[in-house]
Amino acid sequence: WARAVRGLLLDVSGVLYDSGGDGGVPIAGSVEAVRRIKASGLKLRFCTNETQATREKFVKKLQGMGFDISVAEVTAPAPAACRILKERSLRPHLLVHNDLVPEFAEVDKTNPNCVVIGDAAENFTYANLNEAFRVLIGMEKPVLISLGRGRYYKETDGLKLDVGAYMKALEYACDVQAEVVGKPAKMFFESALAEMGVPPQQAIMIGDDIVNDVGGAQRCGIRALQVRTGKYRPCDENHPHVKPDAYVNNLAEAVDIILQQL
Amino acid sequence: WARAVRGLLLDVSGVLYDSGGDGGVPIAGSVEAVRRIKASGLKLRFCTNETQATREKFVKKLQGMGFDISVAEVTAPAPAACRILKERSLRPHLLVHNDLVPEFAEVDKTNPNCVVIGDAAENFTYANLNEAFRVLIGMEKPVLISLGRGRYYKETDGLKLDVGAYMKALEYACDVQAEVVGKPAKMFFESALAEMGVPPQQAIMIGDDIVNDVGGAQRCGIRALQVRTGKYRPCDENHPHVKPDAYVNNLAEAVDIILQQL
Repeated sequence: WARAVRGLLLDVSGVLYDSGGDGGVPIAGSVEAVRRIKASGLKLRFCTNETQATREKFVKKLQGMGFDISVAEVTAPAPAACRILKERSLRPHLLVHNDLVPEFAEVDKTNPNCVVIGDAAENFTYANLNEAFRVLIGMEKPVLISLGRGRYYKETDGLKLDVGAYMKALEYACDVQAEVVGKPAKMFFESALAEMGVPPQQAIMIGDDIVNDVGGAQRCGIRALQVRTGKYRPCDENHPHVKPDAYVNNLAEAVDIILQQL
Repeated sequence: WARAVRGLLLDVSGVLYDSGGDGGVPIAGSVEAVRRIKASGLKLRFCTNETQATREKFVKKLQGMGFDISVAEVTAPAPAACRILKERSLRPHLLVHNDLVPEFAEVDKTNPNCVVIGDAAENFTYANLNEAFRVLIGMEKPVLISLGRGRYYKETDGLKLDVGAYMKALEYACDVQAEVVGKPAKMFFESALAEMGVPPQQAIMIGDDIVNDVGGAQRCGIRALQVRTGKYRPCDENHPHVKPDAYVNNLAEAVDIILQQL
């Protein structure tokens, strides 16, 4: 599975670091692994569904942990959503984390004709959910754009419901289907490939999420590895629909194998 | 549709009164309609998915509006849930309205092995949802019991997401299917019929909710009318799956027609 590779797509949380209320901790070997990828001449994109912060803030956090990463190397849902909003003249009501709001600075938000939902965390209040619901149910044809469909994630203080759960609540209440712009959406992986200038059959996705990372990438014809770090659970290996091209213990091991084949 | 009737099942909110933050307002003619049903000798059950208060408090509110109603005449989800918990030795973690908690006074809640979700309203906080989620995801086979599957309801200060939306969020996050004990569950209507001692073909359900009231009753072989009050919307008349046996403008009109046929 490691042959003929020209570009790597790396999930971030659970592959580079373990997140937590206090920022997070790098996963052993990952800082060095990113450095080795860059030294090898392979193309590289960081593919995150992170929607709790602007890319600027997100990248700064990773740099603080020692990672060689820049904003221009990150593929994330919020900029993808902004492109869609612009193309379709949509004015969003935002149900997102406060720290993500600056990503939508250039977008007209007056008199909303759609709802954009991200991982709003503490902003997922009863009042805010009712408000987003009222905007949607007031439209003739509700438009709900979701910056991901994750079920839950782990922070140092425990598991948290992710954006997908709240997306489902609004979908059910309004009888609509959300348009998902983060992983595992096809468009998300296609953007990342285009940004690298690498065709799917020459790319490998490395992630900890069997559905959003592995399943999403494979549906685009990209090989995908699951790391046994982050949210990986042994039962993932019996997933009824998705089978990774390979398992690796962590990013460092994946990079070892891939670089040996170059 | 009004022939050979021996018992009536009445939905409450949207049929007897319009609810609101300040208590609610009787729908014109409904107080008198309940009085006429009782005078006629027809059997009667009040069938509510109300889970924001104990039956005692709920009945007191309705009596305050002038309705002739007693606790013994009310079929509600919480007592049904308590029966199930007892039968299956389940110890619930409760995500319900504070005012509903006394209905579960007799139930062992230590070391929970299931989650019971109701319309928790202001208790639907980010922290409480995460906590219920963690209880569920920590079980080998998560058991989620929901006191209804309503999408939303109207209060005087606007539309609110109902328990069904939050149920869907937890279902998705944990990849489980909730067991619903309120309307439109078959068991709910069967309990109400048993309590009246009337077979389904001699009963009529009167409600404002095309799915939970009308669809649920019809699946049990009970005729069902939709009133054009409460949450009724004209587009309900084009519902793809459910067609009421008749429409009536309000409860008073339904009772007029039914009593004429006696």
